[in-house]
Amino acid sequence: MQALLVIAHGSRRAESNDEIRELTRLLAERAGSDYAIVRCAFLELAEPSIPDGIEQCIRDGAGEVVVLPYFLSAGRHVAQDIPNEVRGKQDEYPHITIRIAPYLGANAGIADLLLETASVPA
Amino acid sequence: MQALLVIAHGSRRAESNDEIRELTRLLAERAGSDYAIVRCAFLELAEPSIPDGIEQCIRDGAGEVVVLPYFLSAGRHVAQDIPNEVRGKQDEYPHITIRIAPYLGANAGIADLLLETASVPA
Repeated sequence: MQALLVIAHGSRRAESNDEIRELTRLLAERAGSDYAIVRCAFLELAEPSIPDGIEQCIRDGAGEVVVLPYFLSAGRHVAQDIPNEVRGKQDEYPHITIRIAPYLGANAGIADLLLETASVPA
Repeated sequence: MQALLVIAHGSRRAESNDEIRELTRLLAERAGSDYAIVRCAFLELAEPSIPDGIEQCIRDGAGEVVVLPYFLSAGRHVAQDIPNEVRGKQDEYPHITIRIAPYLGANAGIADLLLETASVPA
């Protein structure tokens, strides 16, 4: 069973974290049969943490967890912090496949989405 | 003539700011005839500033500037800081239409782009 774990930075604003939870619900709807489990986790300032999020996916029955960084640029968080958080859980569960997907901003499709967003009345 | 001004947060990492400039070039290619001018500006930590970016668009001949926040959540930057930066320029150039588009994360299409990103090998 494959799980998708969306990783956001986390914010002091509860509304921003709730936005991520809402997005996660939308993702679960759209994922169809690709991911039986769709959850989110936060690098900091909100719960669950990345290790706790991975743990929840495994408890839900995931044999594979795709960690998906909801970040626009390849900064320290993407390059170091997220892999560091994932590593401990991978060591703890060597029989589970944990794969870190590219960060969102790396997808060239973001340009088309930006152009579409630009044409929406504010 | 319509200009598209992509607003990113700005980073201490030069590579992150260069990523935005590269994205801006990609947007210019894809925008076709919709936007004769495509530029970027930064809220902080990088140049040009938002007022300077708007100024550049107007000097390039823009009669309308669409300000597009490259942000994933509706935090203080999107709700207050960007509008505040734009306001001064709008007051300075009342005959130019400056419109702030929704921020990227508000586009529901982001869910599909995330699912697509999840399936890309890292």
